[in-house]
Formats: sequence, structure tokens, C-alpha cells
Amino acid sequence: MAESVPDVHDRDEAEIEFGRIVAFSDGVFTIAITLLVLSLEIPPGGDLSELLSERAEQFFAYFLSFAVTARFWLAHHRFYGLVQRFDRRLVTLNFVYLSFVALLPFTTELIGDYSDDPLGVAIYAGCLAILSLAFLSQTYHAYGAGLVREDALPYRRRFTGPPSWIGVIIFGGSIPLALISPTLAVLTWLLMFVAGRWVRDRASGLSAPG
Amino acid sequence: MAESVPDVHDRDEAEIEFGRIVAFSDGVFTIAITLLVLSLEIPPGGDLSELLSERAEQFFAYFLSFAVTARFWLAHHRFYGLVQRFDRRLVTLNFVYLSFVALLPFTTELIGDYSDDPLGVAIYAGCLAILSLAFLSQTYHAYGAGLVREDALPYRRRFTGPPSWIGVIIFGGSIPLALISPTLAVLTWLLMFVAGRWVRDRASGLSAPG
Amino acid sequence: MAESVPDVHDRDEAEIEFGRIVAFSDGVFTIAITLLVLSLEIPPGGDLSELLSERAEQFFAYFLSFAVTARFWLAHHRFYGLVQRFDRRLVTLNFVYLSFVALLPFTTELIGDYSDDPLGVAIYAGCLAILSLAFLSQTYHAYGAGLVREDALPYRRRFTGPPSWIGVIIFGGSIPLALISPTLAVLTWLLMFVAGRWVRDRASGLSAPG
Amino acid sequence: MAESVPDVHDRDEAEIEFGRIVAFSDGVFTIAITLLVLSLEIPPGGDLSELLSERAEQFFAYFLSFAVTARFWLAHHRFYGLVQRFDRRLVTLNFVYLSFVALLPFTTELIGDYSDDPLGVAIYAGCLAILSLAFLSQTYHAYGAGLVREDALPYRRRFTGPPSWIGVIIFGGSIPLALISPTLAVLTWLLMFVAGRWVRDRASGLSAPG
Repeated sequence: MAESVPDVHDRDEAEIEFGRIVAFSDGVFTIAITLLVLSLEIPPGGDLSELLSERAEQFFAYFLSFAVTARFWLAHHRFYGLVQRFDRRLVTLNFVYLSFVALLPFTTELIGDYSDDPLGVAIYAGCLAILSLAFLSQTYHAYGAGLVREDALPYRRRFTGPPSWIGVIIFGGSIPLALISPTLAVLTWLLMFVAGRWVRDRASGLSAPG
Repeated sequence: MAESVPDVHDRDEAEIEFGRIVAFSDGVFTIAITLLVLSLEIPPGGDLSELLSERAEQFFAYFLSFAVTARFWLAHHRFYGLVQRFDRRLVTLNFVYLSFVALLPFTTELIGDYSDDPLGVAIYAGCLAILSLAFLSQTYHAYGAGLVREDALPYRRRFTGPPSWIGVIIFGGSIPLALISPTLAVLTWLLMFVAGRWVRDRASGLSAPG
Repeated sequence: MAESVPDVHDRDEAEIEFGRIVAFSDGVFTIAITLLVLSLEIPPGGDLSELLSERAEQFFAYFLSFAVTARFWLAHHRFYGLVQRFDRRLVTLNFVYLSFVALLPFTTELIGDYSDDPLGVAIYAGCLAILSLAFLSQTYHAYGAGLVREDALPYRRRFTGPPSWIGVIIFGGSIPLALISPTLAVLTWLLMFVAGRWVRDRASGLSAPG
Repeated sequence: MAESVPDVHDRDEAEIEFGRIVAFSDGVFTIAITLLVLSLEIPPGGDLSELLSERAEQFFAYFLSFAVTARFWLAHHRFYGLVQRFDRRLVTLNFVYLSFVALLPFTTELIGDYSDDPLGVAIYAGCLAILSLAFLSQTYHAYGAGLVREDALPYRRRFTGPPSWIGVIIFGGSIPLALISPTLAVLTWLLMFVAGRWVRDRASGLSAPG
């Protein structure tokens, strides 16, 4: 009887097959990245060239968010390839993480419309900083609670060491910067796509975005 | 010839592979949870801080529905991990269930816009009460018709006993409450995230949301 | 060299793995059924009970289309479980079919808004009649070109015989009826959910919707 | 320790399982093709027959984009069936490619609304020309870097030879044409669906769209 199983928590968690959790996460990523396109909208019946040039920032936001989402997915993907088991907390942390992944079409529309507004830029940066933190909370917990595969132990520093904090530092650090210059804050985000490689080469390790 | 197969119903149901039904359900969950973001919309060209503070309830509704959907998915997921076979009725009940899962982006938008309206809160609660009932109808039918795996028989009470009625009780019970105080009704929903554990510890069983 | 392979068409088709085609079809079905919810929209800041009662037809349209899509998916699913190989034509016919499956969120919104308009009802019926025909074209072709599994040959009448024409007859037949009475036309669609069983019991075969 | 693994790049890339990348791509395709329907919108409460006839181009755009997306998916699908390994560059090129696949619902809406506008037609053609180029960049790189299966080597000309350039030529070539006659430019796109077969028969090879 379930009622008398002492370690019922573990059993419960074992029942939810690991692959389904990862497939669910992949699904949220795929849908969120494809919904980014909804942030682009051209009203019918206007002067097209004018409408398009007014929306240059929306197109920039689309491609930026596409690249950011792709990087977060690659990191999530790589990390979960090393995870062997999971517990209730890892599942919860992953759902918190996914709730910010699914938010990306909204924040992308926001920054496309409010790219000159310090608040718009700060919210976009803030959501990505939280996303980066929610990812780190998973890697720290998985390594701490012994949920990773044995052959993944050597990669611990890569997923929890200084290079893994790049996303938090860049996006978190750009929040105060946004209040001074929104444009400058946006530009620092692009560092994410070069910083990873730079830090990695320096540390001879591999950085994970966020 | 199909025409002379006596037990053609069973055969028919066997043809629809079980895994596809579950994958279809997972797909609806993944898409519905990612479409929740569509309930968040900020018109361009306004005072952003004002627009955001006016929409505080929308953000609350987004994260609430994300958490609720995640819990329903975990319960569905766990239960279907124990199901071995299915019949026409289980498939039908599952589609009724999914039609209310797919409704979540709508009800989330509704409660984000009408969080102070007793009717808005009652509709949200009503849809989740129906969703909870539609889940229970599956667990009761599957256990009653012998569709679960043999090693899942000890978990019967968990999926059909009192703890499994928590979702129906909380969401159904909040409907009359919403007519008195919408805010209080919303607060009772949060019980769902603590009640499960409380009842489980009490009964030494595991509760399933809804 | 590809250039000298004589039967290059077959090879080409073999390269596209069958499972991916089916997964792609399932994906379109899952997304289309979940996007049906977009046909439901309540503007913020109005009298909610009035707005809802004005939209009763939209809710009816949502649940009708959900049930219709589920039935079409089950039929597609069952049939493709019997298909062993595919050729270029089957893939093309399937894409034509899917282009009308993906149209369902649009036609559902249309009939929710124009349920009293003969044209709105006729378009909805017309799209489902085409969908039914596009499904039949696949079953006829697959059986005619020998693409089904050997053990599926006895089911030929089920997928190409009179019962399989129910969808075409009901939806096609309701088009002229819609010009006289849109409401009556809508009611005949509900026959689809009882007719299948009735014809099947009569023929001792199993009908496929569409 | 990760820090001392010399060939860490390869290892890193190996960790991201190949199947997931392909599944991710398939997901983006499936969602994008199903979101095409969002380009069709009929406002409620108007003269339906008039509203529909005004939107004839939108329906044409929907079915055209559905067919185009299907062809691109088939080509992507066939090609990745031959790929054995991948490196960082192939993943990056694939994401660039997918960012234009995910753009299709937007460009489809654009050309549905601006089918008479040279700029609207040129943008649609331009996006598909870039998409075709982004596909070619993957096939060239995969063959150049030895990432394809050994038995796929004979197909090199098919994926990198003249027939593989059809998409770039048709869509790229229609951009200047659009400035003279938008309608003529749209008509040339239909060549894509016949040109493939024609060139293939001529070369006794198989063309890949784009």
C-alpha cells in the first residue's frame, strides 16, 4: 500500500519519467521561440516602408531574443544531458525557470515597443537575470544533491563556477545601466555571445549562458 | 475481415497506440502553458510604469496559471505512467479533460482582466473544478475498468481517495466564496499548493492535484 | 552517385523517415487544437455577464471544433498506424490535409462570430468536407498503391467503404442546408458523433470520421 | 576535470544529442506552419462575403506559405537524415535558418496585406532567399567538414550542386522583379514547385528546395 511506503517521495519522483520532464521543457522552449514572431506586427493599409522603419527595434528584438533563447536552450539541453535523477525540488526549480522562458514572447514585444524606455530595458534584463539565476539554481542543486551522472562530476565547475555566472552578471549588471542609457544596456547583452567563448578560453572550461 | 471480427472495439482501441495519446496530451499541456503569455499585453506608446502597475493582476494570473497547469500536468503524467491499457471511454474522458486544459489561456486572460469581478473569478474556479473532475473521472474509470498496471493497484486510494478530491473541493468551494469576496476566493486557490502536502502527510499517501 | 541511381524517387522517399511525417502531422493537430482557444476573446472592462452571453456561440464553436478535431486526429492516427510505406503522393495529400487542419482555429473563430450567417456556416462545413475528402484521398491512395501493412488489408472497407464517407456526406450535405437554415446545418454536424457508431453497428465495421 | 580536457569543444558538441537538435527544428517548423493561420482574420459583425473577397490574397498567401514551409521542411528533413555528426557551426547555422522559418507567419501576414506593394513582395522573397541560403550554408558546411554519413557522400551534388540553388535563384531573382510587377514576382515563386522536378529530371538528380 502506498500509505505504508516509507520513502514515498522518492518513489513518487521516480514515477514521473525523466525523459518526459526534459521533453516538456524542450516543448516550452520550441513554442516560446516560435511565438517570438508575434511581437512583430504591421497594421494593414499603411505606408509599408515607413511602418517598417518605425519598427526597426522590433526586428532587432526578435533576432536578439531568438539568439538568447537558443543559447539558453543549448545550456539547458547540455546540462540535462548530464542529469541522471531528479527530485521534487529540481522539478519545481525547472518549472520556475520555464515560467520565465515562456515569458520571452512578452518581454520581447515589450522591449521592441519600449526600447528607449529605461524601464522596458530594465524589465527585459531583469527577466533574463532571473532566468539565468533559475538555471543556476538547478545546476547548483543537481550537483549538491548528487543528481548528476558520475561522469559529469568533472564538469561541476563549468556549470556552477564563475563562467556559469556570466548571464546573471551581464543581465543583472545591465539593469542599473539601463537607467542611465537604455541603448548601452542593450549593447552589453551582446557581450553574452562573445564573453562565453572568451571566459572559456581563459579558464579552459566551457561556459554556459545564464 | 474487420466486418467479422467480433470484438472489434477492443481491436480498434489497441490500434491507437497508447504512447501517442499520452504524447498528444503532453503536447496540449505544453502549448497551453506557453500560450498563457498571450494574456499579457502592453499597448505600445504609453506610460510604461503606469501600464504595468495597472496590470499587476495579469502577471499574478500568469504565474498562478503556470503553477496550476504544471501541477495538473504532473498529476496527469504520474497517473498515465500507471495506465497500461485504455478503452474508448478513457480516450473520450481525456479529450474532455484536454478541452479544459486548452481553455486555460482564455480563463487566465479573463481573470487577469476581471480579477475583482465575482463572475470572472467564479468562471476561472469553475473551469478548474471541471478540470479536476474530468481528471478524477479518468482515474476512477481506469481503476474501475482494470486499465492500470498490476503494480499500480496499491495506489488506488491515492488517485481516487479523499486526497485526490482536493482540487474539486478547493476550486468548487471557491465558487460561492467568489460571490462574497473575489480576493478571498483567489487566496484559497493557493491552498492547493500546500494542501496536497498536508493531506498526504496526514494520510501517509500522495495527493494528486485535481 | 545519386545521378545514376535509377529508382531515385523511392530512395528519396525512404530517406524521409515515416515516423517523422506522422510526428509532424500529430504536431500540427496538437497545435491547431490548442490554438482553438484564440477564437475566444473577452475585451477587458465591460459587463462580463453580458459579454459572455453574447458569446455563447463562440463557446459552442470552441467545444464543437475541439471534438471534431479530436475525431479527425483519432481517424488519422488509426489509419497511419496501418500504413507501412509512403510515396511522394501520400506525403503531398497529407500536407493538403494538414493545411485544412491548421485552418481550424480560423474557421472556428469565423463560425463563432458568424453562426447566424449562411455563408459562415457554409464555409465551416465546406472546410470540413474538404478535410474529410483529403483524408479519404489518403486512404484510397494508400490502399490502391499498396502502402498499407499486410494485416491491414481486411480493414480496407472500413477506410474506403461507405462508412468512411460519413464526414463528406454530413459536412458536404450541410452546405446547401446552411443556405436555408444555418442552425439546422450546425445541428446535423452533431450527427457525426452518433452516425459513426450507428453505421458501424449496422455494417459491423468501424467508421472513420471524414 | 573539464579544465584539462584538451578537445573540449568536440566533447561539448557531442553532449548535445543530435536527435534533440533535429526534434527542436521539427518543432519550430510544426509550430510556424500552424501559426500561419494567424495571418487570416475576419473582424466580427461585417458583411462576410465582402470581407472574404477583400481578403482573397490572404488565403492565397496562407496556402502558398503552407506549401513553401512544407517543402523547406521536407528538404531539411531529408538532409538531416544524412547528417551523422554536427559541430558548433552547424548548430549556429541551423538556428539562423530557424529564425527565418519562425518568421514565416509574419511574412505571410505581410504579403497577405501588402500583395500589391513591391516592398511587401520583395521582403517575402528576400526572407525566403535568405532561408534558402541558410539551408545551403548548412549543406555546404556539413559536406565540407565531413559531418555526413559515408553512404550520403554520393548525394553531395544534390545538396550542394546547381539544383540545390533553385530556391535562392527563384526567390532572390524575384526581388528585382517585384519592383516592376509584384504579381509577376509572386507567380515566379510557383515555379519552385515545378522547377525542382524539371531540373531533377534533367540532371537525373534530386533537387532540394532552397
